[in-house]
Amino acid sequence: MKNKRVAIIGAGPSGIAQLRAFESAEKQGHEIPELVCFEKQDTWGGQWNYSWRTGTDSYGEPVHSSMYRNLWSNGPKEVLEFAEYSFDEHFGKPISSYPPREVLWDYIAGRAKKSNVEKYIKFAHVVRWVSFDEATKLFTVTVENLRTGETSSDTYDNVIVGAGHFSFPNVPHFDGVETFPGQIMHAHEFRGAEAVADKDILLIGASYSAEDIGTQAYKMGARSVTFSYRSNPMGYEWPEEMTELPLVERFDGSEVHFVNGEKRKVDIVVFCTGYLHHYPFMPSELTLSSPNNLYPDTLYRGVVSEANNQLFWLGAQDQWLTFNMFDAQAWYVRDVILGRVALPSKEAQRNHMDKWLSRFEGLKSENDQIDFQCDYVEDLIDQTDYPSFDLKEVANILKGWVKSKEEDILNYRDYTYTSVMTGTTSVEHHTPWMIELDDSLERYLSEPQEDEARQVYRGKKVRDKA
Amino acid sequence: MKNKRVAIIGAGPSGIAQLRAFESAEKQGHEIPELVCFEKQDTWGGQWNYSWRTGTDSYGEPVHSSMYRNLWSNGPKEVLEFAEYSFDEHFGKPISSYPPREVLWDYIAGRAKKSNVEKYIKFAHVVRWVSFDEATKLFTVTVENLRTGETSSDTYDNVIVGAGHFSFPNVPHFDGVETFPGQIMHAHEFRGAEAVADKDILLIGASYSAEDIGTQAYKMGARSVTFSYRSNPMGYEWPEEMTELPLVERFDGSEVHFVNGEKRKVDIVVFCTGYLHHYPFMPSELTLSSPNNLYPDTLYRGVVSEANNQLFWLGAQDQWLTFNMFDAQAWYVRDVILGRVALPSKEAQRNHMDKWLSRFEGLKSENDQIDFQCDYVEDLIDQTDYPSFDLKEVANILKGWVKSKEEDILNYRDYTYTSVMTGTTSVEHHTPWMIELDDSLERYLSEPQEDEARQVYRGKKVRDKA
Repeated sequence: MKNKRVAIIGAGPSGIAQLRAFESAEKQGHEIPELVCFEKQDTWGGQWNYSWRTGTDSYGEPVHSSMYRNLWSNGPKEVLEFAEYSFDEHFGKPISSYPPREVLWDYIAGRAKKSNVEKYIKFAHVVRWVSFDEATKLFTVTVENLRTGETSSDTYDNVIVGAGHFSFPNVPHFDGVETFPGQIMHAHEFRGAEAVADKDILLIGASYSAEDIGTQAYKMGARSVTFSYRSNPMGYEWPEEMTELPLVERFDGSEVHFVNGEKRKVDIVVFCTGYLHHYPFMPSELTLSSPNNLYPDTLYRGVVSEANNQLFWLGAQDQWLTFNMFDAQAWYVRDVILGRVALPSKEAQRNHMDKWLSRFEGLKSENDQIDFQCDYVEDLIDQTDYPSFDLKEVANILKGWVKSKEEDILNYRDYTYTSVMTGTTSVEHHTPWMIELDDSLERYLSEPQEDEARQVYRGKKVRDKA
Repeated sequence: MKNKRVAIIGAGPSGIAQLRAFESAEKQGHEIPELVCFEKQDTWGGQWNYSWRTGTDSYGEPVHSSMYRNLWSNGPKEVLEFAEYSFDEHFGKPISSYPPREVLWDYIAGRAKKSNVEKYIKFAHVVRWVSFDEATKLFTVTVENLRTGETSSDTYDNVIVGAGHFSFPNVPHFDGVETFPGQIMHAHEFRGAEAVADKDILLIGASYSAEDIGTQAYKMGARSVTFSYRSNPMGYEWPEEMTELPLVERFDGSEVHFVNGEKRKVDIVVFCTGYLHHYPFMPSELTLSSPNNLYPDTLYRGVVSEANNQLFWLGAQDQWLTFNMFDAQAWYVRDVILGRVALPSKEAQRNHMDKWLSRFEGLKSENDQIDFQCDYVEDLIDQTDYPSFDLKEVANILKGWVKSKEEDILNYRDYTYTSVMTGTTSVEHHTPWMIELDDSLERYLSEPQEDEARQVYRGKKVRDKA
């Protein structure tokens, strides 16, 4: 076993989960393979590793993170908590249910630092190409050390792709878009809402990016926020400055025409049009090709490549659950590699996938989707020794979250939930989200007086809490 | 010869030059190799193929072009004219010396269409990886068809890299830059100056990108334009709204502090900080690693890879000359591949490079640089049958251009020059550049009355011609 070699691509929450899974087995006395984790960024955290850069990074590589300064978790932290590393353990006190990005990054990093996994990670190493040799049954992974420019290749028994699929923007074309004189970007390139104050902003899309950036823009004082949907509006109770219109038909300079005949002048356009599964380092016979959905086909149990059972994907699903789902997947992948879980025949794998795909295709509501993904994760956890937790209650929290947004889309982040891991109920944050402009870890963990909390930003343009 | 196979990477001016070079030899009765040209964009033109997109393209690949809507040639067209396809031949009438991008793209495309080279080009094919087998002396080139996602590999006797080196931005870090709340971009992502009207814009850099985007910003009504230089200011006679300051020390929100103690609030920051030689498809033992300069080391005669004489680079130099220099290089590379030019020993190659490098290092002025590059191109043309032309006169035109910018940085594009290819003197454009807001081919080639030309944009914010 010792001379088996495993390459892990990416040191975000998925890659770290995979390293932790192997470390956990080693602590129990199991021999584990040689591990190498390639991370193209300079530090870990993946999506949560904020960069002010857009386009290409300091090495000329596509910027990985789609994070922005003002991002706060848009779901309660109680649904993403690690079963083996709680928020209580990390922060030493109860915190609110919707922490900002720096706080969540700190939590991910804290779990990694508590373990001993950093030694496996090669930072600023980008995977250029992966190939598989049918004769030797080994992968060749070609990598560039971005700091030195040196390229090299090595062979591995297994490859685990934890590169994420929210990094390469999907940007549709609209007639005349090239005549729009203002700023055009994809949500991937959005870095902060301060600059939209007093501006008219158009968000094309009706999912999480549009909802969140639109709400941020309103909070930061945008003059108007227009959403454009293809199929259905989000349908929340927006304030009067925020409007949902159907799809853009065409641009004529700064005037945008919608398919219902309406037109509006806007200053800024943000495409909130989703992301591509894009793995430029994978040959077509091995790659994952899928829309962003809850059950990408060709992945047995959501992780084992049907094309090559030595190849795995973590976090390839659309996500109601995140960190703990990646953990459950990583523990399962570990046990397949260690031989503690035997894979069934290819035919049985296909039947298993078809069964889940059939249920997936029948999902009708958001609550159905939530139950589907919680059941998927529960099923995975049943296969391994990852600490079990109450996924039925997690599903309830998620359903409550959906309802809370319907009740109050601008202020749902002030709601609190109870951890299924520790039983701790989160605290109300010292400052309501709509008037909190400082998303720093320091500010978040501080304990200002009520008056101070509400008045520290006096003079800046902030919408009052509704 | 027929079964020799050559891969050309990129169908911009360099790649098309290479195809034209081989076609020209074939028309003279020479047998030519099998040619395949891989172009990652959907059409030819490379840098001149404008895209409204930034960051990643519709396939998730880094956007190649650094072009913007309002770009007009910043040097006289008389210094980039093809010796085998004149502006007169393409447009059928004299035009001005500084055409906008669409006009130059049309000229490039016209030359390609007049030939029969399109059949060799695979559009929307990105090269993923190149390797060389010392045993077979063949390259393996791995390519993805971006429209289908299919990847494939083939072997070639020669690889010619015409991918360009003005696509991957160099973006230095400044303290506090992540706190800047406005729009930050690199010149690579700049798509048009209309949106800077009434804004305070900071351009970090003191070379062509800063000069041109700054001038555009002024033309389009920016409230103020601040340049920040590291070593020396450009030193032009700027109008009072434009200022040169030394390097940025740090950002503090929207306030920018400079190393001389001054500070300014700005709305937009554009990094005009150059580009990286970045070839993510090349292994380190074959790649070109160089700063952007007039004589990148390890390229014999500026094109033959010292590391592997079967590998070539086109247009890898910083450029006073462009299209006709690429032609001269392509004709030379062709003749090396066809065996019409014999390469000297590796030692003689090194001595030849050292001689040129030594002259390069002694260059003191812009005029020295111009003479250097014109001599380099003349020397190349002497080796092949590319049509000779008066490079001494081209050098004079370039020196005149440098002087014209010193005389009138805002209006130098109204000057005219005489073609060394045809003897045709360019015409004064119907509208002075500073009041011409429409950069379309249609407008450029139209012949409006003087009054109409000057008044068609009445009502828009345009600075008067100085």
